[in-house]
Amino acid sequence: MSRRPIAVFDSGLGGLTVVKALQKNLSNESIIYFGDTARVPYGNKSQALIQEYSEEITEFLIDKQAKMVIVACNTASALALNHLKQRFEIPLIGVIEPGAEAARSVTQSKHIGIIGTLATIRSEAYERALLNLDNTILTTVRACPLFVPLVEEGWLEGEVTIQIAETYLAEMISDNIDTLILGCTHYPLLIPVLEKVVGEKIRIVDSAETTAKYAAKWLQELDLLTKDSSHGSLENYVTDLPVRFRRVARRFLGREIDHVSTVHLS
Amino acid sequence: MSRRPIAVFDSGLGGLTVVKALQKNLSNESIIYFGDTARVPYGNKSQALIQEYSEEITEFLIDKQAKMVIVACNTASALALNHLKQRFEIPLIGVIEPGAEAARSVTQSKHIGIIGTLATIRSEAYERALLNLDNTILTTVRACPLFVPLVEEGWLEGEVTIQIAETYLAEMISDNIDTLILGCTHYPLLIPVLEKVVGEKIRIVDSAETTAKYAAKWLQELDLLTKDSSHGSLENYVTDLPVRFRRVARRFLGREIDHVSTVHLS
Repeated sequence: MSRRPIAVFDSGLGGLTVVKALQKNLSNESIIYFGDTARVPYGNKSQALIQEYSEEITEFLIDKQAKMVIVACNTASALALNHLKQRFEIPLIGVIEPGAEAARSVTQSKHIGIIGTLATIRSEAYERALLNLDNTILTTVRACPLFVPLVEEGWLEGEVTIQIAETYLAEMISDNIDTLILGCTHYPLLIPVLEKVVGEKIRIVDSAETTAKYAAKWLQELDLLTKDSSHGSLENYVTDLPVRFRRVARRFLGREIDHVSTVHLS
Repeated sequence: MSRRPIAVFDSGLGGLTVVKALQKNLSNESIIYFGDTARVPYGNKSQALIQEYSEEITEFLIDKQAKMVIVACNTASALALNHLKQRFEIPLIGVIEPGAEAARSVTQSKHIGIIGTLATIRSEAYERALLNLDNTILTTVRACPLFVPLVEEGWLEGEVTIQIAETYLAEMISDNIDTLILGCTHYPLLIPVLEKVVGEKIRIVDSAETTAKYAAKWLQELDLLTKDSSHGSLENYVTDLPVRFRRVARRFLGREIDHVSTVHLS
């Protein structure tokens, strides 16, 4: 039997940060990445629409023989993961629980800040996941709708980006959080700016790394890890080849992307 | 025969600035507004996809008995208007030619700046329209991908917005343009900031008002203006009811929006 791939999907290309973490932790696994670039961003869409899109994509990935689907999009994890779990039997992982788990293991003061898209923040999914782990944890949350376009524009540093980050984070800094969850796959690219703004006392947690480790652990438990010892492949599917695609993809993956196909859903 | 409506469509809600201008100029006309909010933004999508979406929407509007379709989205005007004209017989108006005409009538130095989304700027549609009017006109162009999210976030003033505008407009200001075309329906809301940044010597042109006048003139020539003397109605269709819909809609229309239906295309 040929090596079945792990599938990762996101609304756009931000989920490539999860692919990068998977390749580091599970270099023999083959990966399929699906970026719904025709319909990005999900962060300001309704729950019904996000569920519909996520379902279509999961069906596509199952057709591609995926052995596990990782919902790398925080918005889709927050608003559609349970919906998907009810509909599909394939192992499904979101990024919210791994992110919450990572933050819980880091926090000392038990006061955690959460940033994400409008839809993710409104869903309160991170608060619920954290309270499930420890009901004495306090949270301060803030939607940061300008961070995604800043990353896509490539303004990863500089005065404007710092000022926007200061505006978004002022309240949680004065609330004395000691841990900050980056609840969006675009945000890891802003870590240098965010570190400047929050200072050394606040630890920044991104879910890409923890999610990859969750995936590895679960695949092992299910005895689904590949036995093949050669390097795995990466295939990419997008719903539209957008303007500046390669430049943005390179930013997330840390190297050139190839094997890209454009597919049309529904 | 009942009053047939003028249809206006945009990728999102920015085209409501054109609706506002139509209501001012043609208060007896009924209007249908279509905002493709499930698939907004168009500005970083491929031409093929923008043409496909525009075609679906135009079919929907023709089914609704529209007597004219105004493509209020600059990106769709730039990339899909000719495609639509080949496929449909209904009178079709974009915003590029009216915007170019307005700028030509204002400029003294014949050096015009153009700002818009990535896709609009890449299409060079404004340059072509201006050169068609006067081939001695010079242009300086700049894509401003952060302006749409700034408007949707409601950051219509303040230091950050000014700095972003300064970054985007620096080159055209030093190039001595005397006229600036706002090549995106979101941008009129930034006029106060843009005026601060460009100073008094540069005239700002937005196409909403000129487009409404074009529509009035053409309807009159075709003898399609309504004979009804009562106030026209406004019906709104969106493809998704997004988070913060009413607040954003109010910002563009200048008052509360009602009669909104959600429709599912394709």
